[in-house]
Amino acid sequence: MINTELVLPVREEKPRENGWTILIDNGAPIQHFKDTIHSSSEYIDLVKFGWGTSLVSKYLKQKIDCLRKEGIEFFFGGTLFEKFLSQGKVDEFYHLCKQFDCSYVEISNGTIDIPNRKKAEFIADFADEFAVVGEVGAKDSLNSEQQSSAEWLENIHEDLEAGATKVITEARESGTSGICQADGAIRIDIFNQIIASGIPMERLVFEAPNKQMQTFFIQNVGSDVNLANIALSDAIALETLRLGLRSDTFNL
Amino acid sequence: MINTELVLPVREEKPRENGWTILIDNGAPIQHFKDTIHSSSEYIDLVKFGWGTSLVSKYLKQKIDCLRKEGIEFFFGGTLFEKFLSQGKVDEFYHLCKQFDCSYVEISNGTIDIPNRKKAEFIADFADEFAVVGEVGAKDSLNSEQQSSAEWLENIHEDLEAGATKVITEARESGTSGICQADGAIRIDIFNQIIASGIPMERLVFEAPNKQMQTFFIQNVGSDVNLANIALSDAIALETLRLGLRSDTFNL
Amino acid sequence: MINTELVLPVREEKPRENGWTILIDNGAPIQHFKDTIHSSSEYIDLVKFGWGTSLVSKYLKQKIDCLRKEGIEFFFGGTLFEKFLSQGKVDEFYHLCKQFDCSYVEISNGTIDIPNRKKAEFIADFADEFAVVGEVGAKDSLNSEQQSSAEWLENIHEDLEAGATKVITEARESGTSGICQADGAIRIDIFNQIIASGIPMERLVFEAPNKQMQTFFIQNVGSDVNLANIALSDAIALETLRLGLRSDTFNL
Repeated sequence: MINTELVLPVREEKPRENGWTILIDNGAPIQHFKDTIHSSSEYIDLVKFGWGTSLVSKYLKQKIDCLRKEGIEFFFGGTLFEKFLSQGKVDEFYHLCKQFDCSYVEISNGTIDIPNRKKAEFIADFADEFAVVGEVGAKDSLNSEQQSSAEWLENIHEDLEAGATKVITEARESGTSGICQADGAIRIDIFNQIIASGIPMERLVFEAPNKQMQTFFIQNVGSDVNLANIALSDAIALETLRLGLRSDTFNL
Repeated sequence: MINTELVLPVREEKPRENGWTILIDNGAPIQHFKDTIHSSSEYIDLVKFGWGTSLVSKYLKQKIDCLRKEGIEFFFGGTLFEKFLSQGKVDEFYHLCKQFDCSYVEISNGTIDIPNRKKAEFIADFADEFAVVGEVGAKDSLNSEQQSSAEWLENIHEDLEAGATKVITEARESGTSGICQADGAIRIDIFNQIIASGIPMERLVFEAPNKQMQTFFIQNVGSDVNLANIALSDAIALETLRLGLRSDTFNL
Repeated sequence: MINTELVLPVREEKPRENGWTILIDNGAPIQHFKDTIHSSSEYIDLVKFGWGTSLVSKYLKQKIDCLRKEGIEFFFGGTLFEKFLSQGKVDEFYHLCKQFDCSYVEISNGTIDIPNRKKAEFIADFADEFAVVGEVGAKDSLNSEQQSSAEWLENIHEDLEAGATKVITEARESGTSGICQADGAIRIDIFNQIIASGIPMERLVFEAPNKQMQTFFIQNVGSDVNLANIALSDAIALETLRLGLRSDTFNL
């Protein structure tokens, strides 16, 4: 960061538990990926290889090597876990994670129809060997509208009690399901219940794929809110929002 | 592709006539273009140099060299043909295609006002020396709303009979005209008539610039549907949709 | 540009006062930035380092070196000036601009609440040592709806009289405030008043972050209209619009 006389919010140094920026890689070409990471590594905590893109990425190993070198963690998108699960191959998913020496694993039920209790059992299993990130919320906007805020809260608690290191609230890449309505507006009922619950903010990560959502969470939780599903191209722009260097959060 | 125990749809090897992914280059910088192609060449069949961008691309020759090396075909966007035609310079367009040693040429009437019959004559002319891709549908959303599904079908047949190797259905880069309504919804009447017509799917290519359209065609035609106007940044993401590795097509 | 027999609008050579393309850098990684500039430098007049991104860009100096080598000017986004001003540190902003040897400075009041007269005084101060670009219009869509076209015109005149070399009309990166309504439509009342005022077009720059706005200004002002907030990825696409090589401006 360029040294000026400006007074700005102070961010924790990495590694940290608050203020995470989790980028989502949707299959970026290898040089572009490395260029992005290299140019903004101090602002990136983890990278999620979105849904099943890792399997069709020719240079996955090189991407992972790049992240290790820059001190950035990674995990495969929860949909990949669900794909293996849907074919009765959770052991094979475990071996895949071992093969790439993952520290983190995401466990979700955003697409498949299994109760949260069942998901929490998988979280407990994987938590023996990995830092597990649980995900709450449905990817389908109809299913997701039917989830009450009480159910959200119950699921978050269940995931944390099962051993999840953090829980992510679903919003997809588009910000149109999970904690969002189909029209993109944030479901304030869920957000308010989460805040009122007293769950420590360092145990939560909000998917916030667009500026409107990023602004909302920064204004309502603070600069050091944990955010995920950040596009590779938004790493720097998000940091300016956190620091009050953009109009939307100017008065932080 | 990373080898796992997952059972996934099997894709034909390149070169193929089904399951084409045609990327659209809107004037990407040269290194980024090469990086994209190099990182996902096995999933890309052709690249279209969108509308007239080829003329203002400093590194067009290098882009074409890169494609040849990776076994990927290319053509200039139909609007470029129409621009030459509008100035009475179809011969000059022919020479341009020869100069860059094109195998494919796209012939369309999406912007200029000439009857399909006239367009089909140009297809017949160019088909003597090139593989010709005909395009059906208007780029202006008002004009395109006035085209009935019967007219669409007639135009597709006319183009194929004139010698087009494949016919592309217009949707622009935005998915808001041609086979789409101005609001982005797919015109099911046209799609259904095309399906009912029995035209072999390997003779058709659907422009599908966004995830909603890609999902629609994959679900309704199959993994091996031919798709065009795919953004450079979506090559891998589209492949995951074809393989059922993303929530939207999870149950393929 | 590839030499063809096509008759196209003739563009002035750089350096020029009409037909400016000002790209906005939102924090692009360094290689991607250089690749973009290198691949399309003949079509780019200036680069704005958007809002406060310059402060969190690890490779700002390398970006500036790249621009100098390609004969492209640059400035920091007006929001950065406003941030310094809001902390009573305009002198520090001046030193920052000196430190990076800026030729251009942008002075705006799109976020902070100071009268245009006050902004014009800063323009006058900075105009002693820099080419100053004044910006008119609010970033907040509610504030911006309250600005009448008469007020716009008055502010533009005030900025020019204070010594601004050019005045930019606000539209943000999203095209939803300033000269745009919240729904993205251009405020024709303001545009018409500006045209009717007889202010020379070379003194004005229109922010036009999307194709719809670019098309509007090119059709209503001409190929050589000055445009800003152009995404790095749109440098070539914009040039094709200026040259009538895309459907939207085909009949230029």
